[in-house]
Amino acid sequence: MSRLTLTKTAEILLSKDNILVLCHRYPDGDTIGSAFALCRALRKLGKKANVMCGDIFPSVYSYIYSDFEQLDMKESFIVAVDVADKSLLGILEKPYGGKVDLCIDHHGSNGFYAKDTYVDASSASTGEIIWSLLPKLGVEADKDIANAIYTAISTDTGCFKYSNTTAKTFRTAAKLVDIGADVAKINTLMFDTMSMGRLKLERAALDSMRFYCGGKIASIALTAQMFEESGASEGDLEGLSSLARKVEGVIVGVFVRDTGAGYKISVRTHQPANACEICKQFGGGGHNAAAGGFIKAHSIDEAVDMVINAAAKHIGEEYVG
Amino acid sequence: MSRLTLTKTAEILLSKDNILVLCHRYPDGDTIGSAFALCRALRKLGKKANVMCGDIFPSVYSYIYSDFEQLDMKESFIVAVDVADKSLLGILEKPYGGKVDLCIDHHGSNGFYAKDTYVDASSASTGEIIWSLLPKLGVEADKDIANAIYTAISTDTGCFKYSNTTAKTFRTAAKLVDIGADVAKINTLMFDTMSMGRLKLERAALDSMRFYCGGKIASIALTAQMFEESGASEGDLEGLSSLARKVEGVIVGVFVRDTGAGYKISVRTHQPANACEICKQFGGGGHNAAAGGFIKAHSIDEAVDMVINAAAKHIGEEYVG
Repeated sequence: MSRLTLTKTAEILLSKDNILVLCHRYPDGDTIGSAFALCRALRKLGKKANVMCGDIFPSVYSYIYSDFEQLDMKESFIVAVDVADKSLLGILEKPYGGKVDLCIDHHGSNGFYAKDTYVDASSASTGEIIWSLLPKLGVEADKDIANAIYTAISTDTGCFKYSNTTAKTFRTAAKLVDIGADVAKINTLMFDTMSMGRLKLERAALDSMRFYCGGKIASIALTAQMFEESGASEGDLEGLSSLARKVEGVIVGVFVRDTGAGYKISVRTHQPANACEICKQFGGGGHNAAAGGFIKAHSIDEAVDMVINAAAKHIGEEYVG
Repeated sequence: MSRLTLTKTAEILLSKDNILVLCHRYPDGDTIGSAFALCRALRKLGKKANVMCGDIFPSVYSYIYSDFEQLDMKESFIVAVDVADKSLLGILEKPYGGKVDLCIDHHGSNGFYAKDTYVDASSASTGEIIWSLLPKLGVEADKDIANAIYTAISTDTGCFKYSNTTAKTFRTAAKLVDIGADVAKINTLMFDTMSMGRLKLERAALDSMRFYCGGKIASIALTAQMFEESGASEGDLEGLSSLARKVEGVIVGVFVRDTGAGYKISVRTHQPANACEICKQFGGGGHNAAAGGFIKAHSIDEAVDMVINAAAKHIGEEYVG
């Protein structure tokens, strides 16, 4: 359970072969982009390496993996990327949860479940860490790697919009453009295209929006039926949890979703509110401005009520549900 | 009417004093950010310089100019920034249209109405040009200048999303962060805040969305009543006309609004459809991907029907309204 430097992380990877790279469930651009960038880099070193995820990759990311073939390989070293806790491995938790050799992550809430861990919470995305790792591995990024890392960085920063964006994020993006990353194409796909399912989800989300504490808190509640009727996929949910916080005056945006197997909460905050502090009360975690978790409740209304209650207390407001 | 190099542009500015910097009407982040960045830079050189615009600056940009005071000055040199044509000076066209000494712009369509002009159409924003001008003026950017230029760059690239974003755009942004630009604060204001009116407008727009020709055409119809009930301002309409085109499979997005004084149409297309060709049929015009116009009809439904009909014919599809 040791905490590594980036140099030591590279040394360990260089000493291994037959490496399996794991993504977190509900895979997003950062875990997918980081995993394929790392896997392709390891293969460029002549190593065998594969990528696995407990969930199906959303097809919107297919440009990252459409030409990627799994190798016939018996894994002897397991790496998890962007996976803050082993429970986030989803159905891969059972076979691999206790066997992760190395975790590379940017979540300050990382549970240090792996044998060795490299965490840089100041990094806007795990993709940025993989980018910094490449020269230490002696790998020169090609266009495929650049596209994967650009996807990781741009999605986890909301296209350089969120407060986690740093000068390093912009410098990395500049270098990725130099290498030939398809920035315009990826941006259109990630930020300017919505499926019919997403359209219906957004409509339902807007219809469900409620305000509390004089408009300082807003909630969106997505029932299993709403999700079902929209025909949306898991990937269509991305970014929806930030919608409530966008409204002028809102400092805590709460998103609750009935997954069918429990209530998933996502909290997005503006300073001085702290999303992680709110989610911790339900055993969740994350970053200061964006955190999440699961909540036990009898109904989605009760789940929303519990989070609004915690959020109201957190910002020092009264709320009677 | 000569076309300058950037070095010559700097030399001319260095030789002048009492400089008035003009913005275009309907002022946006690029013209405002560029003007204040240039004006502050000129003042750092000990020169007198002011900023003027025919329209009132939207208050969302107040962080750029809230501490800025106009100097008592009789202007002897007029600079227009991001103003492609003198008609875009609005009510300042009459006093200054024929008297602009220097125009600094990034529009390929620049009309060369000024005595001297520096145009770089490869630049994503005029702000990027001002940034490149600073070292030639011998001015070191401070935080105020960095915030102004960051605003110019980020708004004209849709927060680094549009296809005009280059490696240089990212490198400039990185340097602005180094200088202390309030990137997170500015991004939240520009890209992550919507008024309650906008929220209601978006909800109404999504509810009104209809699809035609197997999903290749989509329409949004905004009645005067919907606009009224939302409590939205004119500014809240920005970008709403692009919403229909965002849906996967849509190549023609039609937006019709009952302004109370006629039906305003906005058409947004993906290739091979051409928005300008569609709008021309109603006496309108614009760019290949974004065009508009006004239409005479007895009802908003009839107006929508007329545009859908024209759009269907344009893409070679059958439509029976």
